[in-house]
Amino acid sequence: MSQPDPLKKLAEQLQRLPGIGVKSAQRIAFHVLKTPREEVDRLADAMREVKDRVTYCSTCSNITDVDPCFYCTSPERDVRTICVVEQPENVAGIEKTHGFRGMYHVLMGALSPLHGVGPDDLKIKGLLGRVASGSVEEVILATNPNVEGEATAIYLAKLLKPLGVRVTRIAMGVPVGSDLEYADDVTMTKAMEGRREV
Amino acid sequence: MSQPDPLKKLAEQLQRLPGIGVKSAQRIAFHVLKTPREEVDRLADAMREVKDRVTYCSTCSNITDVDPCFYCTSPERDVRTICVVEQPENVAGIEKTHGFRGMYHVLMGALSPLHGVGPDDLKIKGLLGRVASGSVEEVILATNPNVEGEATAIYLAKLLKPLGVRVTRIAMGVPVGSDLEYADDVTMTKAMEGRREV
Repeated sequence: MSQPDPLKKLAEQLQRLPGIGVKSAQRIAFHVLKTPREEVDRLADAMREVKDRVTYCSTCSNITDVDPCFYCTSPERDVRTICVVEQPENVAGIEKTHGFRGMYHVLMGALSPLHGVGPDDLKIKGLLGRVASGSVEEVILATNPNVEGEATAIYLAKLLKPLGVRVTRIAMGVPVGSDLEYADDVTMTKAMEGRREV
Repeated sequence: MSQPDPLKKLAEQLQRLPGIGVKSAQRIAFHVLKTPREEVDRLADAMREVKDRVTYCSTCSNITDVDPCFYCTSPERDVRTICVVEQPENVAGIEKTHGFRGMYHVLMGALSPLHGVGPDDLKIKGLLGRVASGSVEEVILATNPNVEGEATAIYLAKLLKPLGVRVTRIAMGVPVGSDLEYADDVTMTKAMEGRREV
């Protein structure tokens, strides 16, 4: 009974968001209370609009507000290379590097028998179709560097290679700017294995 | 152009919340995208409801959805003690200790000439009226332990003492569970000054 119900309810809802704990939820709820009504409306509307207007590209499964998406229709992107990622947010991560000008394909997950995710749950059929269409020369497997991502990459490589396309996997090693002291054994092993001539 | 507009707009709005940076905003926006529509509605509605239903108590200025508030009407609270705080969230902080059973008075800020906040901008008149009404025996000044809070406490003490009421200030010292090594000079000085017989 110590706090008004609407405030408690908002804090509860906020705690469901990723990275928001009890204290942050409380702080944001009090912030909302002090924020002008119009700004609160803008935030609430922005949330609904994401649900209403954002869909998935019928070609690459990336998120988009027009179908097909920006990448799939842009004349400036190189159609000979497809970068395969697990989630739409991975596309944003790669785009930020400004180093890749090819196409994307979002799997919408990774193989994970433990969580009941099999090949049919991923957007694999669409990928094979795009590669079979002929213009693709290289498929870069940029799934996560963990057990599920690695298994997915191996599975896809087996399906893609018979199609006569070059299949590559992003490099794994010690992150730039880090200290070798903190690298775990597996990462260090990958870094050694993947060493290159300087 | 790399991300759909609604997603960008939501991330922008989220960044205005306290403690939410670029990366968290991005993460939450993607989370909203994957969240079922009903849950997004619940969060958006909860925000609006806080603005619509939460008001300030006409007696103590604490936030409430009924006026006068829970504390001001509860027969179980001790009307002889009023704890003065700067913000409604401070009430929640004190209530969590389960150690205080008196009344509250929220100033809605602290004296701050630099930010143009003078005595008339705070809920001081109401506090003096409550104390003058007779039943109050002690006023605990629980304003923040910083320059503004301290100045406000001194100012209030000067106004309250002539009314024949006991005026106290919360203790300042080293926080429990911390390490003396990290205590700043001012805190350490306060801790020494405020030492008590064991």
